[in-house]
Amino acid sequence: MNTIQHTLEQITALDPQWQSRAQNHLDRLTKPPGSLGRLEEIAIWFIQVTERFPPTLPKKMLFPFAADHGVTDEGVSAFPKSVTAQMVYNFLKGGAAVNVLARHAGVEVRVVDMGVDADFKSLPDLIHRKIARGTQNMAQGPAMSRQAAETSLKTGIALAEKATQEGVTLLAVGEMGIGNTTAASAMTAVLCKAPVKNVTGRGTGVDDAALRHKQKIIDQAIKMSDPHSKDPLDVLAKVGGFEIGGMAGLILGAAAHHIPVVIDGFISTAAALIAVALKPEVKSYLLAAHQSVEPGHQIALEHLGLSPLLDLEMRLGEGTGAVLGMGMVDAAIKIVNEMATFDQAGVSGKTEP
Amino acid sequence: MNTIQHTLEQITALDPQWQSRAQNHLDRLTKPPGSLGRLEEIAIWFIQVTERFPPTLPKKMLFPFAADHGVTDEGVSAFPKSVTAQMVYNFLKGGAAVNVLARHAGVEVRVVDMGVDADFKSLPDLIHRKIARGTQNMAQGPAMSRQAAETSLKTGIALAEKATQEGVTLLAVGEMGIGNTTAASAMTAVLCKAPVKNVTGRGTGVDDAALRHKQKIIDQAIKMSDPHSKDPLDVLAKVGGFEIGGMAGLILGAAAHHIPVVIDGFISTAAALIAVALKPEVKSYLLAAHQSVEPGHQIALEHLGLSPLLDLEMRLGEGTGAVLGMGMVDAAIKIVNEMATFDQAGVSGKTEP
Repeated sequence: MNTIQHTLEQITALDPQWQSRAQNHLDRLTKPPGSLGRLEEIAIWFIQVTERFPPTLPKKMLFPFAADHGVTDEGVSAFPKSVTAQMVYNFLKGGAAVNVLARHAGVEVRVVDMGVDADFKSLPDLIHRKIARGTQNMAQGPAMSRQAAETSLKTGIALAEKATQEGVTLLAVGEMGIGNTTAASAMTAVLCKAPVKNVTGRGTGVDDAALRHKQKIIDQAIKMSDPHSKDPLDVLAKVGGFEIGGMAGLILGAAAHHIPVVIDGFISTAAALIAVALKPEVKSYLLAAHQSVEPGHQIALEHLGLSPLLDLEMRLGEGTGAVLGMGMVDAAIKIVNEMATFDQAGVSGKTEP
Repeated sequence: MNTIQHTLEQITALDPQWQSRAQNHLDRLTKPPGSLGRLEEIAIWFIQVTERFPPTLPKKMLFPFAADHGVTDEGVSAFPKSVTAQMVYNFLKGGAAVNVLARHAGVEVRVVDMGVDADFKSLPDLIHRKIARGTQNMAQGPAMSRQAAETSLKTGIALAEKATQEGVTLLAVGEMGIGNTTAASAMTAVLCKAPVKNVTGRGTGVDDAALRHKQKIIDQAIKMSDPHSKDPLDVLAKVGGFEIGGMAGLILGAAAHHIPVVIDGFISTAAALIAVALKPEVKSYLLAAHQSVEPGHQIALEHLGLSPLLDLEMRLGEGTGAVLGMGMVDAAIKIVNEMATFDQAGVSGKTEP
């Protein structure tokens, strides 16, 4: 727990002086004040988190964390468990949606095996952090031990620290794990005290009967191991996943180093619930890239007080929404750095009333 | 009217065979069907309009049309009229928000003077199409003659044709014109049969008293010249603007050449109302980039049956939302062209129920 405790202690509230410095500059640019809406909000957020003005265009990195879920034994997903490993190969070859969108936005992708049920030893481009070949079936008992949950957090924290040393200034979390909307729904139900049926959706696309079955399995899992909503590590251990712990750790490690983090869809937001429950100040370091179609996502975002930037009706995960959001952060920083001021351009300001 | 009539006749309904061809390909890519939401919808739209598969990454061009408005004499704007000309210089120097965001998205910007109240003769980088130095004050009579309205449309049509010859495959419309939310509100009220107070907002930022005054002036303008809602050219002439006619023409010219068009905020959507009223098939050629804060924008988009892609709480115009939307079109095309299929990647499909 030492690393985790140390990281939490490093995380501080944001300094408001950077906000006013950014705001003052934005109001001198050739546009009606506030007229660029959320782009201005993002620019202020980035400057406040990084504590640099003028800001530098971010060096961007996405970590998709992959792991399997024992609960797939219960038939909660529309795709077979083997797809997790197959998609890891697809990520490494650059053929997945997240690779395409990351290239589009100029984001480097680092794939992490947190616990896929496959032997990847021969893969040099993969970051090997396998805790186990998948979690246990949460419908029958805890998904993992408390120690494994701590290990998953520490893994993410260490990856964030390494990225900082490499000069990364904007991080994003993504994931791959057949069955992980089941874990995210269970975590959201417990941490947000929401009814299971309100936070459970179709994931990769189950039908009505399978959706009802999925809800029943989640209810059973929560009843079985009774995760303590005030103890985030207990929730992560009992109904979470290795990739979710990895994402939560990356978020904490990033915040400890004043690196802004873009979160993706429902699963990564469940990871953010853990991180923010451990340290409420973390919330200010997060940008919610988009609103997923998964019904639990909106509830989790509202619980966190985050307003999603995009709503493209996506439900793929991987980090696809996050990298699109990172492109918007670039746009916001360019506004700050490249727009002319009223003085520079010789443009008149507002008429005095 | 000959050029306009000829253009309208060239515009056809989209061919559904391209939609199914695009859809079939998207469903073979390594993701749950439909899970990229609106990115998939945009890809299908682009392929259907351009009638090419596989699609080519678009050559993108934005035309910001600039013009002044006589109605500014009534004190309807928070900024002085002189700002229109000042912002044209800013556009040409690359210091405006639209320049920054266009560079970010890889969009070429061509600024058109449709009727700014300034002498720009010495500017080589400006496209000179001045019809007059601003419209007449619509609160006192028609903003322009019917002939001037036709000229504005023809100007836009000709610019679209020239862009097509240069190999442009994705167009966007933007604008600059102090006072033009007043024109857009009046046009939207007439064409969508909506109460003036529901479609009139703060523009660049007027206060409560000035907003009530603006609404009164718009009511007066509509009462004064009684534009015929079934005659789009009459509406454009009586309560429109030169830049709005230019945008409507560009939209028509683009559709006639199967070039998809991204529209921006409230003013450009008022131009789309004119284009679609002249030829309903035009609607399928349009992508609404974003939802502006201006209340009339939502009403105009609903009237057109268009769903905005982004909602970044922007209200700047210029084409700022449109170029961000163009970046999303690029992302959608890359998904089609760069993602691996299930077969290529050796990824299993959905489990049979």
